[in-house]
Amino acid sequence: MGERILVINPNSTEKVTQGIAEAMAPLRLDGGPEIECVGLEQGPPGIENEGHVAQVTTLIAERIRARDNDCAGFVIACYSDPGIALARETTKKPVLGIAECGMLTAMTLGQKFGVIAILDRSIPRHLRYIGSLGWTDRLAGERAIGLGVTELSDEGRTLTRMIDTAKLLRDQDRADVIVMGCAGMARYRDRVEQAVGLPVVEPTQAAVGMAIGRVRLGWRTRAQMAA
Amino acid sequence: MGERILVINPNSTEKVTQGIAEAMAPLRLDGGPEIECVGLEQGPPGIENEGHVAQVTTLIAERIRARDNDCAGFVIACYSDPGIALARETTKKPVLGIAECGMLTAMTLGQKFGVIAILDRSIPRHLRYIGSLGWTDRLAGERAIGLGVTELSDEGRTLTRMIDTAKLLRDQDRADVIVMGCAGMARYRDRVEQAVGLPVVEPTQAAVGMAIGRVRLGWRTRAQMAA
Amino acid sequence: MGERILVINPNSTEKVTQGIAEAMAPLRLDGGPEIECVGLEQGPPGIENEGHVAQVTTLIAERIRARDNDCAGFVIACYSDPGIALARETTKKPVLGIAECGMLTAMTLGQKFGVIAILDRSIPRHLRYIGSLGWTDRLAGERAIGLGVTELSDEGRTLTRMIDTAKLLRDQDRADVIVMGCAGMARYRDRVEQAVGLPVVEPTQAAVGMAIGRVRLGWRTRAQMAA
Amino acid sequence: MGERILVINPNSTEKVTQGIAEAMAPLRLDGGPEIECVGLEQGPPGIENEGHVAQVTTLIAERIRARDNDCAGFVIACYSDPGIALARETTKKPVLGIAECGMLTAMTLGQKFGVIAILDRSIPRHLRYIGSLGWTDRLAGERAIGLGVTELSDEGRTLTRMIDTAKLLRDQDRADVIVMGCAGMARYRDRVEQAVGLPVVEPTQAAVGMAIGRVRLGWRTRAQMAA
Amino acid sequence: MGERILVINPNSTEKVTQGIAEAMAPLRLDGGPEIECVGLEQGPPGIENEGHVAQVTTLIAERIRARDNDCAGFVIACYSDPGIALARETTKKPVLGIAECGMLTAMTLGQKFGVIAILDRSIPRHLRYIGSLGWTDRLAGERAIGLGVTELSDEGRTLTRMIDTAKLLRDQDRADVIVMGCAGMARYRDRVEQAVGLPVVEPTQAAVGMAIGRVRLGWRTRAQMAA
Amino acid sequence: MGERILVINPNSTEKVTQGIAEAMAPLRLDGGPEIECVGLEQGPPGIENEGHVAQVTTLIAERIRARDNDCAGFVIACYSDPGIALARETTKKPVLGIAECGMLTAMTLGQKFGVIAILDRSIPRHLRYIGSLGWTDRLAGERAIGLGVTELSDEGRTLTRMIDTAKLLRDQDRADVIVMGCAGMARYRDRVEQAVGLPVVEPTQAAVGMAIGRVRLGWRTRAQMAA
Repeated sequence: MGERILVINPNSTEKVTQGIAEAMAPLRLDGGPEIECVGLEQGPPGIENEGHVAQVTTLIAERIRARDNDCAGFVIACYSDPGIALARETTKKPVLGIAECGMLTAMTLGQKFGVIAILDRSIPRHLRYIGSLGWTDRLAGERAIGLGVTELSDEGRTLTRMIDTAKLLRDQDRADVIVMGCAGMARYRDRVEQAVGLPVVEPTQAAVGMAIGRVRLGWRTRAQMAA
Repeated sequence: MGERILVINPNSTEKVTQGIAEAMAPLRLDGGPEIECVGLEQGPPGIENEGHVAQVTTLIAERIRARDNDCAGFVIACYSDPGIALARETTKKPVLGIAECGMLTAMTLGQKFGVIAILDRSIPRHLRYIGSLGWTDRLAGERAIGLGVTELSDEGRTLTRMIDTAKLLRDQDRADVIVMGCAGMARYRDRVEQAVGLPVVEPTQAAVGMAIGRVRLGWRTRAQMAA
Repeated sequence: MGERILVINPNSTEKVTQGIAEAMAPLRLDGGPEIECVGLEQGPPGIENEGHVAQVTTLIAERIRARDNDCAGFVIACYSDPGIALARETTKKPVLGIAECGMLTAMTLGQKFGVIAILDRSIPRHLRYIGSLGWTDRLAGERAIGLGVTELSDEGRTLTRMIDTAKLLRDQDRADVIVMGCAGMARYRDRVEQAVGLPVVEPTQAAVGMAIGRVRLGWRTRAQMAA
Repeated sequence: MGERILVINPNSTEKVTQGIAEAMAPLRLDGGPEIECVGLEQGPPGIENEGHVAQVTTLIAERIRARDNDCAGFVIACYSDPGIALARETTKKPVLGIAECGMLTAMTLGQKFGVIAILDRSIPRHLRYIGSLGWTDRLAGERAIGLGVTELSDEGRTLTRMIDTAKLLRDQDRADVIVMGCAGMARYRDRVEQAVGLPVVEPTQAAVGMAIGRVRLGWRTRAQMAA
Repeated sequence: MGERILVINPNSTEKVTQGIAEAMAPLRLDGGPEIECVGLEQGPPGIENEGHVAQVTTLIAERIRARDNDCAGFVIACYSDPGIALARETTKKPVLGIAECGMLTAMTLGQKFGVIAILDRSIPRHLRYIGSLGWTDRLAGERAIGLGVTELSDEGRTLTRMIDTAKLLRDQDRADVIVMGCAGMARYRDRVEQAVGLPVVEPTQAAVGMAIGRVRLGWRTRAQMAA
Repeated sequence: MGERILVINPNSTEKVTQGIAEAMAPLRLDGGPEIECVGLEQGPPGIENEGHVAQVTTLIAERIRARDNDCAGFVIACYSDPGIALARETTKKPVLGIAECGMLTAMTLGQKFGVIAILDRSIPRHLRYIGSLGWTDRLAGERAIGLGVTELSDEGRTLTRMIDTAKLLRDQDRADVIVMGCAGMARYRDRVEQAVGLPVVEPTQAAVGMAIGRVRLGWRTRAQMAA
């Protein structure tokens, strides 16, 4: 049927978009919505600073506007949820961010969540966002692996660092659930989970998992209702 | 296919179970999981005090145990999420509560959520639960309509009180999204939403909407992984 | 005189009940209330999971009902305060939990309290409870000794682990007061305190110490007043 | 026996000291500690501003020093808990404040407490104190009756205003337990409670009720242990 | 001397820029920094939605880049602090936002601050920002006057609504200090303050008042130091 | 011109007053306010316990009263902000504390601030103060160097310990900005900052930097307005 969820990876790294698309496999239901994953070719290779966030905020809104007619809902697949407020102003369809959905899913799987970030400089931005969501008390801690988005394709190094970081979140920060803080980490979920013995939330899966129901229910925000 | 989500209404009021079952209509996808709604005939007519909570905590666990083999996930359809911790110890399948999912869904639809409770004496229990979830800062307020679960079938009176209460949550407590704080209110969602101009979250829809994705992903809590 | 505080140890391990009874010695005043300590023979040997909590919730309420006529107040002597909300619905007499009283007493003795738990899997339950009480900001941290309730009778091993754990709470988590997170730890209080140089709160003493005054004042909750 | 709790009313209004002494009646146990209530004749008639707080901070410490040899514990009977940190540095005996004990007792009687203050200008000081204790999330609200300490002896006017204020705390701020925010309000407790149908905590009773147990246990703060 | 603080009003309404410039009068010290106020002619007439925020985020960064050589510090004069994170990435000079400085100045003038917003739809954005700053507990409430930025030049209507709103913040929300939540309200400060008897913080004055010292101290963020 | 900010170091250690005066150099603007730094000869050598706090609370108020006619504003230069509430009751001029201004300045420079204290026993007092200000969520941690105020003049030892402590705040507590928790540390700011690569806030500079603007604006608290 015609229902489609558009998953927007706002960076231009195709490997990340592919990884996301593969991670969607279990969520592709026969009668369920189509899940289309797109990257933004004008976006930066990774969202790694505030300039990137500002840049893709506009790009995402443009893409939503362009696809509003043939999509039933949108997922912003970058762990800073860039432009989510603008996106919700741009369409009357449901918009979910992978950071918010990753964290709220984690909060149904454990009492304290830890986040694996890519870079140290992502962490203050994430902490501000968690504060804006009012969820600071549930955060065990966030730690970075020190690799940029494009470096995540180096499997050996990335996996090792992710596991080491997840163990610190478990043992030092006492997290009982882990959220992967970058859409580009999707392919490593199972292996990290097995290595640390904690549930590991892949945030795009979490968001799309929620979007399937949401597009059927079609609930709108107050501003969407008034527009 | 064989996947089934079991929605357990822990009270014995069939009308509530029926209302829930009807509310599931938009979430029944062709290739998606079967959504089966059951009431607990040994449960009280409504979960209205701590004795009821304790009673159904055990009943829910028993039911989950009895159905663990033929279900892929469970939703506890009472806004106190009774026995959710025990349920998650009882099965390795995903268990979601309608209060937690109602609230976390609301947090994606507005900055401050208001809750419509059935009775004043439900409110302290809900506040404790919100505190345990760390979401107190997102709560605008909770107000009761002063009707027990079985009285909710009186349509005129219930709808009037729900709308009046939702308006107080909007105007006095400054909520920008409303959560219906009882599974028995499902049938009133659309009319309350239209009357107040705010999104109104029907919590069983919110929970089952999330469960559809979750049963495909199969993530377990730390304790479920270790068991 | 006839006033009596009933201290209910909801587990069936007599050694724990005995340890509690001995810890009551300083609180037995000549003209003060009688302090009677009972175990629940149908309870589990220790409250170590959610199933145990559910089980004793009902048992405690039954015991309170059975003894309501000859007791002036009740203390639930398990650090999960199981069934405290139900107990307060069951009697019009004061009911105090050792977790709540242990923590609030600690908050008069230091700015940040650390908790020594028995098992890692107790900690999420305790954290939820602290959240429901709104006291998360005062918690330095909680750490487990990795011993079940019945294993606490092994003095050497238990004492060593309690001291090591208390030192981590002091040095890593920067607690300035320690709460023992299990009624079965009562006998170790003095030795842990001496070893770490921080005040150590034995929670049943804290609760009964408060109950002595409370049974004289007889204050009731709103629900108890309305019943 | 020789144990004595010294209740220090830091103002010079004898009527307040008398009211406190009378409120102690239910807490005078035959074999329990003597409860001695004293006013500070050099203190102001009421603690109504920061100058008063500073003034009595020193006076209270002097009095504790003077009576340290013949008292087993101290209660500071002013709802600003003036000088409590200094007092705990002055003696190795337990020191409790009526504000802290009033609030923590209230937190065992309801989920949200409301406070009846004497003057509007007391409220910011109380809010800062509640913040320092980390209990802000449990506060429903605080409202003043607009009467100074010495005016509290005007029974008719005071009682009327207290009841009106308590009803606002109940109905507007949704408190389910009330704390009287001045030691001089003690005599009105029963009547306010009956009028509003919520538990009303008289804070000096709450503090002395806790002190009875505390002087038997003798727990010290870290600083008291190190001194 | 050559030190200059650039105050960037990101909207294109000259009247707002003029009002800001006039409000700077008391802060123009003889030997102090020059205070230059500029509007952004490409900006919208007022920052009233998320699209405007996104638009000016980029414009502000461009302007800072263009003026980085001849300015010692920057103030973003819009109460949403649009693009403040990006601005701090764009220059190594101090950047202050009027919302953050308005609120932190208010927190030195009262215990609970109330905010006068222009439009209801600004409030969720402001609440998210306050959450990201961790200051939610200090907020009494925020209320809108229901006028857009360009409508603020209608003096009679604006002043009346600001005073009415400030009184609600004082009497209903119990604020003891008011923050004007739009740079375009500057000219009304004195009259609102006189009418309500609470301190009223004009946020651009607050921010520039802080910037004077900051440009002399030159402290940089971690990222600015590392760049 | 006649405007003067009086910086009151409430201890009697001249070296500390000198260090503060030297730190004021960048803030002495040609046409700006005179910045006069005074110590209190009757004060203790350092404010290191609650007795010292109580003592200087009164002394500071006296000094403010004595200088109220020839000063436009006051800064309390001790990191416990002793007597700040009383000081604001004593004068109608602006009063700023270095702890509050140090922290709020830090909150514009990083997301999580760490504090270097002099002594372990200062920390609970500081934590209570942070709690009263509602800023606990922004605190990364506080750690002491274990030196009293007069020992801070031992340059080698002090600097080494400050750097080591700042590194722990950065690496263990994950602070991204440091606040020096004693006015006597002023001279070490630059060297600590260089050593750790994080911004280091000298709190007297932060407070005086804010006071320059504040004395021009002259905003008063509600109580100052009403007096």
